[in-house]
Amino acid sequence: MRSEFDFIQNIKTKYALTRVGDDCAVLPKDSRTDLVVTADMLVEDIDFRCGWTTGKFLGQKALAVSLSDIAAMGAEPRWAMLSIAVPKRLWDTDFPKEFFDGYYRLSTKYKVEIVGGDVSRSPDKFVIDSIVAGEVFKGKAALRSGAKPGDGIYVSGPLGGAAAGLAMLERGERYSASLPGWKKTLLLKQLAPLPSSLGAELRKLGASSMIDLSDGLSSDLAHICNASGVGARLDANLIPIHREIDGLNLTSHEKFDLALNGGEDFELLFTVDEKKISPKKLGKFFRIGDVTANIDIIELIDGKRLQILQPKGYRHF
Amino acid sequence: MRSEFDFIQNIKTKYALTRVGDDCAVLPKDSRTDLVVTADMLVEDIDFRCGWTTGKFLGQKALAVSLSDIAAMGAEPRWAMLSIAVPKRLWDTDFPKEFFDGYYRLSTKYKVEIVGGDVSRSPDKFVIDSIVAGEVFKGKAALRSGAKPGDGIYVSGPLGGAAAGLAMLERGERYSASLPGWKKTLLLKQLAPLPSSLGAELRKLGASSMIDLSDGLSSDLAHICNASGVGARLDANLIPIHREIDGLNLTSHEKFDLALNGGEDFELLFTVDEKKISPKKLGKFFRIGDVTANIDIIELIDGKRLQILQPKGYRHF
Repeated sequence: MRSEFDFIQNIKTKYALTRVGDDCAVLPKDSRTDLVVTADMLVEDIDFRCGWTTGKFLGQKALAVSLSDIAAMGAEPRWAMLSIAVPKRLWDTDFPKEFFDGYYRLSTKYKVEIVGGDVSRSPDKFVIDSIVAGEVFKGKAALRSGAKPGDGIYVSGPLGGAAAGLAMLERGERYSASLPGWKKTLLLKQLAPLPSSLGAELRKLGASSMIDLSDGLSSDLAHICNASGVGARLDANLIPIHREIDGLNLTSHEKFDLALNGGEDFELLFTVDEKKISPKKLGKFFRIGDVTANIDIIELIDGKRLQILQPKGYRHF
Repeated sequence: MRSEFDFIQNIKTKYALTRVGDDCAVLPKDSRTDLVVTADMLVEDIDFRCGWTTGKFLGQKALAVSLSDIAAMGAEPRWAMLSIAVPKRLWDTDFPKEFFDGYYRLSTKYKVEIVGGDVSRSPDKFVIDSIVAGEVFKGKAALRSGAKPGDGIYVSGPLGGAAAGLAMLERGERYSASLPGWKKTLLLKQLAPLPSSLGAELRKLGASSMIDLSDGLSSDLAHICNASGVGARLDANLIPIHREIDGLNLTSHEKFDLALNGGEDFELLFTVDEKKISPKKLGKFFRIGDVTANIDIIELIDGKRLQILQPKGYRHF
């Protein structure tokens, strides 16, 4: 049984899909602008469970996942297309309507125009394909491939919240308005994430490479290293852990594992040449390590201990 | 149980998806060019059956369906994205590879660059979303809404072949290279259609409205009438029936029904102001009737009999 990753790699190699592999494809739009485009397919019982979420949350997430890819290119989102396959059992429920409400509401918030898509029946599972296009100054899209040894490595926010929310769902917790705030926060990180709106700002600041944290820090950093031909050294004590995770009864090792390997936080991971930028401008981001010249090697320093990381990012539930 | 049509109409009305409803969304690209974009979702056991087709045929069809939408806008296809959800049972078979081969081969033939997409697991069904973008001179996309009373109504080729192929599959026939030619032709019309390459030419000739025949002549003509605020009068004796259908043991009424109501022929249906164009240029197309001022009324004339059509196009199998 090949993994999804092998399967995709195989497709890329065979069909020379050279533009595939970054968060978005980059296409010429006009003399000043490039178009960046992404598609994200979400499948019921692979990427979500209808009993764990609401239509509204799911609609928001379907768009957020794609908006996060647009942000990771340093682009501004412009338009979206939405294809869905809806099983009979949901047809006459409020679920599709709420799904559209959630998708539409987030599209309004991020000024994305929904221009089309497709609606089909499905024998049993709800399937969503969300396509979003954005714009960025020509040749300026933030890629995974620009990291240089010596650059600092940053994340845009605390990590592990979405994975903690998933763990809560897996052991039977469900979202309700009456839950304590910290539980709602973690569940919403998983069920209805908000994409970062800092992508374009980070590109302007001069991020040398960027990716959104969908698979998890260890995996997504490996993607940057691989695309850039570099390595990385992370400082375990600098990796920001979502503070609501403290509400869960976890060891510090377990908490750290959520932040390092948990997926779907949809924060931005980026590298930057700190000689070219005033430290003040990076003040609101979290510096977690340094780019090295050890190609594809990710080191994790914890005090005096050094460990070589094996990527073991998120593989969906 | 609402129909797919009601469901989509409801979405369009509620979310003011004004650009949805034509074959493609039309978006500004640069000062001279518009981008047209379409998404088509195909779901196993709704839109196709793996046991009735091959990976290669299905890949070709997945792209052809979208290319046909691009042609219907009078545009030239440029790039494609492909999202697929693949169930475990197919993962280690040749099916996905052959599917990509079929998609890729047709993309090469139509000069479409595959720029990205998504690959996901699926619990059971193979699901495909094919997104294709094309280009057309600014403001010149052929829409459904331009038909005028007095225009002639034309189709680009004979009809009913794909529906005949579907009927053959439904009663147990399967494609094989050893079948007689006429059977292969009809099965391939259903399993591996080729999109029309005449869309851009028809736009330049001055088609006043255009749509591709995916739902069936009666339904798709109703879409044009509805979008244009006109009616239509069809001459039953002018509707071209795919000649290989003669191989099937059908009454003339049954054959005519395949051509009038059968879907997925992916020919182009268009209207044209015949005062503005030399008849010679329309010589290779089939004139089937006239646009009238009777809004949303489609009349069918058969000798002296006149019948008002109820759209009963293709609803998939």
